[in-house]
Amino acid sequence: MKKFTILINCKDQPGIIAATTNFILEQNGNITYVDQHVDHEQEVFFMRLECTFEKTNPSKNDLKQLFDVSVAQQFQMNWNLFDVETLPKMALFVSKYDHCLYDILGRFKSGELQVEIPFVVSNHMDLKPIADSFDIPFFHVPVTSEIRTEAEQAHLKLLKEHQIDFIVLARYMQIIPQGLIDVYPSKIINIHHSFLPAFVGAKPYHSAFKRGVKIIGATSHYVTTELDAGPIIEQDVVRVSHTHTIKDLISKGRDLEKIVLSTAIKHHVDQKVMVYGNKTVVFS
Amino acid sequence: MKKFTILINCKDQPGIIAATTNFILEQNGNITYVDQHVDHEQEVFFMRLECTFEKTNPSKNDLKQLFDVSVAQQFQMNWNLFDVETLPKMALFVSKYDHCLYDILGRFKSGELQVEIPFVVSNHMDLKPIADSFDIPFFHVPVTSEIRTEAEQAHLKLLKEHQIDFIVLARYMQIIPQGLIDVYPSKIINIHHSFLPAFVGAKPYHSAFKRGVKIIGATSHYVTTELDAGPIIEQDVVRVSHTHTIKDLISKGRDLEKIVLSTAIKHHVDQKVMVYGNKTVVFS
Amino acid sequence: MKKFTILINCKDQPGIIAATTNFILEQNGNITYVDQHVDHEQEVFFMRLECTFEKTNPSKNDLKQLFDVSVAQQFQMNWNLFDVETLPKMALFVSKYDHCLYDILGRFKSGELQVEIPFVVSNHMDLKPIADSFDIPFFHVPVTSEIRTEAEQAHLKLLKEHQIDFIVLARYMQIIPQGLIDVYPSKIINIHHSFLPAFVGAKPYHSAFKRGVKIIGATSHYVTTELDAGPIIEQDVVRVSHTHTIKDLISKGRDLEKIVLSTAIKHHVDQKVMVYGNKTVVFS
Amino acid sequence: MKKFTILINCKDQPGIIAATTNFILEQNGNITYVDQHVDHEQEVFFMRLECTFEKTNPSKNDLKQLFDVSVAQQFQMNWNLFDVETLPKMALFVSKYDHCLYDILGRFKSGELQVEIPFVVSNHMDLKPIADSFDIPFFHVPVTSEIRTEAEQAHLKLLKEHQIDFIVLARYMQIIPQGLIDVYPSKIINIHHSFLPAFVGAKPYHSAFKRGVKIIGATSHYVTTELDAGPIIEQDVVRVSHTHTIKDLISKGRDLEKIVLSTAIKHHVDQKVMVYGNKTVVFS
Repeated sequence: MKKFTILINCKDQPGIIAATTNFILEQNGNITYVDQHVDHEQEVFFMRLECTFEKTNPSKNDLKQLFDVSVAQQFQMNWNLFDVETLPKMALFVSKYDHCLYDILGRFKSGELQVEIPFVVSNHMDLKPIADSFDIPFFHVPVTSEIRTEAEQAHLKLLKEHQIDFIVLARYMQIIPQGLIDVYPSKIINIHHSFLPAFVGAKPYHSAFKRGVKIIGATSHYVTTELDAGPIIEQDVVRVSHTHTIKDLISKGRDLEKIVLSTAIKHHVDQKVMVYGNKTVVFS
Repeated sequence: MKKFTILINCKDQPGIIAATTNFILEQNGNITYVDQHVDHEQEVFFMRLECTFEKTNPSKNDLKQLFDVSVAQQFQMNWNLFDVETLPKMALFVSKYDHCLYDILGRFKSGELQVEIPFVVSNHMDLKPIADSFDIPFFHVPVTSEIRTEAEQAHLKLLKEHQIDFIVLARYMQIIPQGLIDVYPSKIINIHHSFLPAFVGAKPYHSAFKRGVKIIGATSHYVTTELDAGPIIEQDVVRVSHTHTIKDLISKGRDLEKIVLSTAIKHHVDQKVMVYGNKTVVFS
Repeated sequence: MKKFTILINCKDQPGIIAATTNFILEQNGNITYVDQHVDHEQEVFFMRLECTFEKTNPSKNDLKQLFDVSVAQQFQMNWNLFDVETLPKMALFVSKYDHCLYDILGRFKSGELQVEIPFVVSNHMDLKPIADSFDIPFFHVPVTSEIRTEAEQAHLKLLKEHQIDFIVLARYMQIIPQGLIDVYPSKIINIHHSFLPAFVGAKPYHSAFKRGVKIIGATSHYVTTELDAGPIIEQDVVRVSHTHTIKDLISKGRDLEKIVLSTAIKHHVDQKVMVYGNKTVVFS
Repeated sequence: MKKFTILINCKDQPGIIAATTNFILEQNGNITYVDQHVDHEQEVFFMRLECTFEKTNPSKNDLKQLFDVSVAQQFQMNWNLFDVETLPKMALFVSKYDHCLYDILGRFKSGELQVEIPFVVSNHMDLKPIADSFDIPFFHVPVTSEIRTEAEQAHLKLLKEHQIDFIVLARYMQIIPQGLIDVYPSKIINIHHSFLPAFVGAKPYHSAFKRGVKIIGATSHYVTTELDAGPIIEQDVVRVSHTHTIKDLISKGRDLEKIVLSTAIKHHVDQKVMVYGNKTVVFS
C-alpha cells in the first residue's frame, strides 16, 4: 500500500476540493484525511490531503505528473506531494546548550520523531559526547566573523552531501546567512526563547524579567532574513511571578523550548505546515 | 446566496469524500469548508461540510432529498443538513445561580451567540429580573419530588410551543427526567463544575478542596440518563493552591463555567459537534 | 475586632521581619498572614502582613504613628497601613465597549468585588443604561482634542468629590493625561488587549492576526505616562490558530480581558500589589 | 555563612510568627524568607522560614535543640530544621519507561536538581545503559508475586546502606509495599499519568480516551497505602481533541509527566512541601 500527502494552496475558487478528491478516486485511491482552510481576507485556499492506494501502485513521480496536468495547472496551484513512507532527513545545528538536543535525540530514539538525523553540526565541541551517545555523526564547524563565508560553505557542503531536507536550530546561537536561507526556504526551524514578537533578539529572559511580565513564552518559527520575524509554527507559555529570578525564568523556559521546538518539528515532519506571506497554516 | 452545513457519519469506506464533494459540484454549489475525521479503532468516518449556492437557489428539503438518494443511502450515512441562515431556538433552564445566565444573555445581546432565546425557565423566581432586563420571557415551573411529573409536562409543553431546538442548563440544579432527554437526545447541554470524570455529582468544589487538587475544572457535556456521564463537548481548567478556600474555588470556578458553557453552546450552534457512542467530534 | 494590612518595602537588611512582628505582638495584635519577598538584584525587601486586634481596639491613626516611630523610621521603610473593613472607592472609566463593564458590575453585585463604586464616567452615552440597571451613577464627560483640559478638570472634580481611591479603565479608549496620573500614581488600572510588551498601542488583535501568533493575551497594568508600559499586574493568554479571523480573536480576547482585569482589580483591592521601579510584587 | 530552612505546623494561635522570628534574631541570624499559611477550617498554622547566620556559626543540632526548648514546645509544633548546604540523597525507582529517567538525570547533570543520586533501582534491566551513561550505579531487583518480600528487603537494604532521604518513582510500575511506605512517610514521590482523582489505577490514557475528555493531565503525589490517593504535590494538564489517538495521548502525556514529576521533586528538595491530612501546602 502506498500513502501520499498532498499540500495545496491557490487562489480561492469553486471546484478545487471536488476536482482534487475526484482525481484521487479516478486513480483508485482512497482519501483518508482532508482538511482545508480559506483565508477570506486574502482569498487564498489551502488544503492538506492524505490518500492511500491499496490496489494500484502508482509511483510518486507518475502521480505528481498526472495531478499536475489533470488538476494543478487548471487552478494555478502551488502544491507538493510527499511519500509518507520516506523519512525526511533533518540536520541539527547546536552550540553549547544541551537541553533541546537531549530532548530531540530522546524523542528520535524512542520513535516519536519519524526522521533520519544524518548529523549534528556545531560551532563548538561541547555537545559532541551527547551526539556520540546517540550514535549520530557530529561535525565541528567553527563560526567567527573572520571565517563566516568558510563556515557557510562548510555547512552547505555537509547539507548537500547528506541530502538534508530541513534544518533544526536547537538553540544554535548564530545568525543564519542569506545563502543558507535561500537554499532552505521555510525549511529552517528555529526556537526563540520568548513569546514573539515580544523580546526579539538576544537575552529575552533578561528583558522579560526587567519588564516584569507575569507569563513567559517560547516560539518556534521558520528562519527568514529578518531576525526572529519568520512565520510562527508554534508557541507556548508558562506563568511566572515576582518570586522568580532570571535563573528561574531560564530554567522554566528550557522546558518550554523543548516542547515548543519538538512540536514544531513534528508538525513540519508530518507535512502539516503551509507557509504563506509571513504566516503559517498548521493543520490538525 | 444559500448556505448549508452538512454533518455526516458512517462506516469508514473509500469514496465518501469524493462522492459528497461531487454531489455539491453537480448541484452548482461551492464547498467553502470541509473537515473530516476517522476513528480508526471503531472504523467510523465523520465529515462536516459547508457549501454555498450562488446561482441556483435550492430549497433545503429538495437538497436533502436529492442528497439522500444520490449519496447518503449508498454509504448508509447518519447525516443532517442545516440551513445556516436559520437561527436555532435555545431554551435556558436556570435555578438560582446568575453568573452563567448573565454571561449567556450578554453574549446573546452583543451578537456573539447566533440563536433565538424564546424563553428562560426556572424552578425559582430569583432570576426573573435578569431575564426581564434582557426582554426574554421568563417562566416559573416549580420542581419538587411531589410534582415532578407535572413539571416535566410543563417543560415539554413550553418546549413544543416555542419549537425549541436545543436546551442549555445554565447551572440548573435539577435532574433532567428521561422523558425530556428522549425528546432532546444530544440536544441538552449541561455545565458541570468539575473536571469530569473527577468529582461527579453534588458539591464538586468541596470535593476538590478536600482532595487537595492543584487544578480545578469545568466540563460542558450533553445530558444522558447517567448523571454527569454524557458526551463531553468542552473542558477547561485553572490552577489553584493551598491558599485558596472553598469560597475561592467557587469564585474561580464561576469564570471557568461561563467560558466553558458558552464555548460549548457556540460549538453546538455552529453545528460543529457530532456525538458517537459517548464521545464527541468537535470540528474546528 | 480590628483588622489591618501593612505593606512595606525598604532596603534589604537584617531584622526587619522580627522588628515588625514584634511590634504587632507588643500591641497585643495577632499576625494572621505574612508574606515577604526580596529582590536580591536590587536589594529591596517587600513585606505584606495582616494582623488582628481582638482585645485592644487601636485606631488606624494611632497604630500608624506608633509603627512609624517604633519601626518604620529605623529601617527607612516605604510603607502603608490599611483598615481592612473600609471598602475602597473605585471609579470606572468606560467608552463604548460593554463587556468589561458588565463583568465588573456583575462581580460587584454578587459581592465578589469588595469595593464601593461611586460612579461610572464615560466620554460617550452608550453604556449609561448598563450603569442605570445596576443603580450606579453615570457621568458623561466628552473628550475631544479641543476640550481635553476641560475634560481633565471635570474628571479631577468628580474624583475629588467622591473621594475616589483608585480608577479602573474598563476599555476606556482615551489617553490618560499626566495631571490625572500624578494624582493617582499606581492607582489607575488599565486593561490592554494584548500580551504586553507585544503589540503596544492601537488595534493589537489586528497586529496579532497579521503576525500570525498562535497565542493571544491580555495585560492589566498601572497607567504611567508611557503608553502601555506601566507595571504589569496580571496577564493571561489563550491559544488561537489559522482558523481564527480577527473577529474571532476579538471575541476570544473579550473573555481574557474580563478575567485579567477583574483579577487585577481584586489584587489591588486586597492590597496585594506593591509597585517598585516598573514592576510589581503580587503577593498570593 | 550557614543557611537553614525551618518548616513548622501547629494549632493556629497568636504569637507563633513573632516568637519564631525573635528566636532567629536572638541567635544573631537573619531571616531571608518567611511564608505562612493558615487552614482556617482545621485551624492549623504552617510556616516556612529561611535564615542565614553570617557572624555566628551555629551547628544544626545546637540550633535544633535550642529552638525546641525556646519555641517549639511552647506551641506544640511539628517542625523540622534543614541544613540548606547538605544535598538530600534521592533514590530513583524505574521499570521500563525511559522518559522520566532521562529527564531527571538530564536536570541532575545540568545542576538544575540539587540532590545526590546514589543509585537507580529497577525490576528490569532495560534502563541500565541510561544510568551507566550518567555514571549512576544501577541495581536490578526483580519483583514478582513470589518474591515480593525478598524484593522489599533488598530495597530496604539498599536504601539504608546509601542513607537515602527520599524516593522518586519515575514510572515505576509496581505497588509500593506498606513496609517501605512506613520507613519513608511523605517521602516517596510518584508520578501518575492522569489528572487525579480522575482515572485512578492502570491505563489512565486508555480510560481518558474512552471517556472522550478534552484535557489530559498528570499528577505527582506522595505514596500512601491507598493507590493513587496520596497527597498531591503538583498537577498539570494539556488540551487534546478527537483527532488524538491513544498513542497521541501517551506521547503528549510523556511531556506532562516529565515536567510535573521534576517540579514536584524540586519542591520537595527545596523543602517547600508540607503534608497535613491528605493534602499539601506547597510554598512558593
